[in-house]
Amino acid sequence: MLPKTITIQNKKVFLIDQTAIPHELKTVEIKTLEGMFIAIQTMVVRGAPAIGVAAAAGMALFIEQLSNLDQTQIIKAGEYLKSSRPTAVNLAWAVDKLIQFTKSHQDLSRLKSAVWQFVDELAADDERINRAMGKYGADLIKAKKQVTVLTHCNAGSLATVYWGTALGVIRELHQRQQLKMVFADETRPRLQGGKITAWELMQENIPVTVISDNMAAYLMSKEKIDAIFVGADRVAANGDAANKIGTYGLAIVANYHKVPFYVVAPISTIDIKIASGREIPIEERCAEEVTHINGHQVLPVDVKVFNPAFDVTPAELIAGIVTEKGVLTGNLAQAIKKVFAVD
Amino acid sequence: MLPKTITIQNKKVFLIDQTAIPHELKTVEIKTLEGMFIAIQTMVVRGAPAIGVAAAAGMALFIEQLSNLDQTQIIKAGEYLKSSRPTAVNLAWAVDKLIQFTKSHQDLSRLKSAVWQFVDELAADDERINRAMGKYGADLIKAKKQVTVLTHCNAGSLATVYWGTALGVIRELHQRQQLKMVFADETRPRLQGGKITAWELMQENIPVTVISDNMAAYLMSKEKIDAIFVGADRVAANGDAANKIGTYGLAIVANYHKVPFYVVAPISTIDIKIASGREIPIEERCAEEVTHINGHQVLPVDVKVFNPAFDVTPAELIAGIVTEKGVLTGNLAQAIKKVFAVD
Repeated sequence: MLPKTITIQNKKVFLIDQTAIPHELKTVEIKTLEGMFIAIQTMVVRGAPAIGVAAAAGMALFIEQLSNLDQTQIIKAGEYLKSSRPTAVNLAWAVDKLIQFTKSHQDLSRLKSAVWQFVDELAADDERINRAMGKYGADLIKAKKQVTVLTHCNAGSLATVYWGTALGVIRELHQRQQLKMVFADETRPRLQGGKITAWELMQENIPVTVISDNMAAYLMSKEKIDAIFVGADRVAANGDAANKIGTYGLAIVANYHKVPFYVVAPISTIDIKIASGREIPIEERCAEEVTHINGHQVLPVDVKVFNPAFDVTPAELIAGIVTEKGVLTGNLAQAIKKVFAVD
Repeated sequence: MLPKTITIQNKKVFLIDQTAIPHELKTVEIKTLEGMFIAIQTMVVRGAPAIGVAAAAGMALFIEQLSNLDQTQIIKAGEYLKSSRPTAVNLAWAVDKLIQFTKSHQDLSRLKSAVWQFVDELAADDERINRAMGKYGADLIKAKKQVTVLTHCNAGSLATVYWGTALGVIRELHQRQQLKMVFADETRPRLQGGKITAWELMQENIPVTVISDNMAAYLMSKEKIDAIFVGADRVAANGDAANKIGTYGLAIVANYHKVPFYVVAPISTIDIKIASGREIPIEERCAEEVTHINGHQVLPVDVKVFNPAFDVTPAELIAGIVTEKGVLTGNLAQAIKKVFAVD
């Protein structure tokens, strides 16, 4: 069994250091709000659901250190933490939810224990939601034979507290003995697919083959890929989905080969305040992520680089969005509206 | 000015060691047929037109060492050299052309000098052909404003003896002051785009920006890309084009964004013996090309990898094939038939 990505024990917060995977499995303790900001920004913890819970834990660390209950300070801390990464909505969602929660407290010492319980519940919810999505996603595979699927980046246990979103579906398929092979895009520039997804699946003896991102089209032309499952960092009200850079190109290629392309994301990833994907802020990261690999310069010194960390897949290329409330299909804008109307 | 990729002086053969680019520009002398086999296989020299001329030079080295004129030995040496890499047809084309040439000689010492002249002419032809393609390709850009183009892998001076195929077009556009920016796919797994194309263009102050392969779709959705120019390793009689892995996916993405996708390749790259791209042999290379970068292991130990070195872009996705005899467009099968009928 994989260790949990985020562990909270006696008001102490531990993260698996994902920058050390696959070469080392080590845990770091995060002690302050600022420490959590850095951990999120440097991707010690990454993955939309994971950074949501990590941010909430960072807020709990901050509140724990308060000497008086000052809502302004809490909001300011939240804004600071939210600025660590702009694209994934789960970060803002979790921080805002926690701030809302603090508003019902007048007593600081009670808040200090309540907030840790709040974070614990958020973490437990994450696993419960992932397992539900895993089942709904696996139900999409009607084939009696074992299937071959493809995934991009890491939407795995390490992108969440536990179990994973896209890899949650894949774990469920593996448990149902319906899985023949997972192809994992290595996912340049940071190689989360080649490093983290491959490592995660190998820990549980789930069959995985790594490809470079640019091999997916050839693979689909040569071998039957039954479905593609990816995660998401933010889904707009019309169903457009921001996810790790390369997802959009993969979706175009999948559609060209008529391979169904599924996004697996909890309802908290849907941002109904945003009408379409065009409005989703896309983080650009430093050139060194492309020019250097594992600390070694591989490209020419001073070469110009464009390094967007995410892209947006339009709803028209998405066969379905797997959520904890079922799979949204057809007109995604309408399906999303319906889910939020019921909420 | 860039140095020539292959230099032949007084029956000595020198290659730029492309595995050392961008960190070092160094030349290695190749002294034997076996040495040339290894140089081609390990990609000290790479690029379809370059390995054609390099192979011919390897054959000249072999013939130079013969003590009697034995056609069987020459053919055997040719077969051996052709087995170094299977996909690019230029290798077989150049070796076969040279073997054909040797058949008209009964005198070994005369052959020994004639064969070097043959190789010199092949090398001179390559540059002349590339410059012609550069002009035809640049003529495709009708826009008065400066354009932004994208390329994949390295179809540059270093993929040929000099000037380049796709980058020959780009050099010509730059000379015509029609070029705003070249985006270069880094081209995993060996990063020929990020390493060699970027280095080549930077040597001549041609504006270049490197992206990871998986960023091309997002780039096309955000910024006007006026055209894509790539090389080819083998073009089938129907216009299907094998090129560096990732080309096919890029062509699908380009078509989705209505960006014209051009293949730049000399007539010698067209293999009319092969009806369609399905028949082109696709080389698979070792896992270490994906798992290790610059000698450092980045992916998990023992991870399974699929590493095809090429893919095939169907004719339907190609707006035109730029050759030294003009640009083939429309029904590519018919256009190719016409060129070879005239030949």
